[in-house]
Amino acid sequence: MADVPENAPEHCPGTTSEQAGKSAPCQGCPNQKLCASGATKAPDPAIAEIGEKLSTVKHKILVLSGKGGVGKSTFSAHLAHALASDTTKEIALLDVDICGPSIPRIVGLEGEQVHQSGSGWSPVYVEDNLAVMSIGFLLSSPDDAVIWRGPKKNGIIKQFLRDVDWGELDYLIVDTPPGTSDEHLSIVQYLSATHVDGAIIITTPQEVSLQDVRKEIRFCQKVKMPIIGVVENMSGFVCPKCKNTSQIFPPSTGGAEKMCADLKLPLLGKVPLDPRIARSCDEGRSFLSEVPDSPAAEAYQKIVKSEFVFRKTPTQMSIVQSVTIKGQNKSCVT
Amino acid sequence: MADVPENAPEHCPGTTSEQAGKSAPCQGCPNQKLCASGATKAPDPAIAEIGEKLSTVKHKILVLSGKGGVGKSTFSAHLAHALASDTTKEIALLDVDICGPSIPRIVGLEGEQVHQSGSGWSPVYVEDNLAVMSIGFLLSSPDDAVIWRGPKKNGIIKQFLRDVDWGELDYLIVDTPPGTSDEHLSIVQYLSATHVDGAIIITTPQEVSLQDVRKEIRFCQKVKMPIIGVVENMSGFVCPKCKNTSQIFPPSTGGAEKMCADLKLPLLGKVPLDPRIARSCDEGRSFLSEVPDSPAAEAYQKIVKSEFVFRKTPTQMSIVQSVTIKGQNKSCVT
Repeated sequence: MADVPENAPEHCPGTTSEQAGKSAPCQGCPNQKLCASGATKAPDPAIAEIGEKLSTVKHKILVLSGKGGVGKSTFSAHLAHALASDTTKEIALLDVDICGPSIPRIVGLEGEQVHQSGSGWSPVYVEDNLAVMSIGFLLSSPDDAVIWRGPKKNGIIKQFLRDVDWGELDYLIVDTPPGTSDEHLSIVQYLSATHVDGAIIITTPQEVSLQDVRKEIRFCQKVKMPIIGVVENMSGFVCPKCKNTSQIFPPSTGGAEKMCADLKLPLLGKVPLDPRIARSCDEGRSFLSEVPDSPAAEAYQKIVKSEFVFRKTPTQMSIVQSVTIKGQNKSCVT
Repeated sequence: MADVPENAPEHCPGTTSEQAGKSAPCQGCPNQKLCASGATKAPDPAIAEIGEKLSTVKHKILVLSGKGGVGKSTFSAHLAHALASDTTKEIALLDVDICGPSIPRIVGLEGEQVHQSGSGWSPVYVEDNLAVMSIGFLLSSPDDAVIWRGPKKNGIIKQFLRDVDWGELDYLIVDTPPGTSDEHLSIVQYLSATHVDGAIIITTPQEVSLQDVRKEIRFCQKVKMPIIGVVENMSGFVCPKCKNTSQIFPPSTGGAEKMCADLKLPLLGKVPLDPRIARSCDEGRSFLSEVPDSPAAEAYQKIVKSEFVFRKTPTQMSIVQSVTIKGQNKSCVT
């Protein structure tokens, strides 16, 4: 699914397109014969293997946002913690943020390592019923940079889905990096032979954030990923001294509320800024059990227990996307 | 510089490596002959063209952070505004965040479009001496998603550097997305035939952010990019009612100050949280001229006027990187 290799001619139609090997720019390209043979259009066999492997996972939820730093990893970790509080359920949390894996720190597993077993890589456990996988467990030091272009990131995501011994799961939560690029296309592609409940979209109230989030919503629509709902984080800050509420990231265009109304999406809830959330994440403890009666913890609990998150209609996704850049007539890479 | 194409065999040494076409996994690969011929190791001719094109740009500064949502675009835009306040200088701001371009909104140019001229694409002007380029100017709607894998993102970054009519510039500021992947490797690669002043690294005080930022610092060290210094954003919030200061993202491991001391990097300054910053960004106005006497604007001004930002020693970069994943012995893609 590379579609357009780096060494492709300028108007390469993409190695998986119908025109691969046949269009004018293909003339003289070293890959022309290969593309024309149809070999590049064959689906990756890993998709079927992953479909088989994850057939024992009842629910799959992706946590997405076009914007970075809005609390995707914090939400993912706390959703996993909240689901795992029912000890009859088996939960797993997969971090596909390859260049900025925050999950090991947030769930208190920094420095842990993955072990190889007969049935694949073993995830690392936070609780008996909460398994975690992240590239952070494969690095020699938490400060190591993973300086990888897309294909290697896609390769490790494939391994996380295919080669990890996930076992039987009730919920698989997938935390993602910001954007609408390799990691997002790959996770959708690799899960395309399974059923996915949908995506929870995280934002903050200001327009600069919502703008990127609307792009992520477009992405979901294009790949036919159902949207479970939207969570607004950093929604107001109550001064601990005088109890005055400040909008630190002001919802100048109406915040998530207006966006959800415009786009007809459920707003799952608004979580206020609370310094204890960031501190708990830094210290690898669950904010929900540290300060369970805080307004932020209550907002979180309400969201993760909402009917939207628990709905029972996993859906098959598509992997057809296109975007037009003005005057360029370029379609997107899948 | 794809290095490892998507359709490559599992242990592909990379198309630009010394082993390309010659190692064991190359046997049976459809690209073996091409790789063995050495054609894939030839440098992209665009690198020399970009070197020539940007030879009239005196200073080039990259704004980086491993973490999203810490204020890279806000800082980039305000650095450009501050430099452009000297009307004898020509400034340009290039946004290489392809999937989440915030710059058009922040500088008040949303909805503007790029024009084609005889000497290339014309950037869009905020002021007579402040030119801006972003993929946002090429989209039909600000909500359009750019669903592209790495190679297409790299292609547009190349076009931004090579095909935009930048003219003679005193400063080119490059705003980047979070991470250490395609956009970062490409900008470093494409600027490798020119001289770059260095990178300004943006962070917020909490450890979960610093952890990703240390990865970006590793990236700079690996590609031999000088680090101008570090800016800590969202550093405390003063309640507008009672003037009490809250650490909303607590520096639980010492914040940017300790990180800079540990890594021997200059801390350029700390900018407090101020809701008027987010609001100005949403409204496309410069915070520096809106509320010039606020503590946050003063902190910004002090940073952009510091001797570090104005130092005069642009440096040639390298593009050799490697990272080892435990038990996998994989080196990075360049």
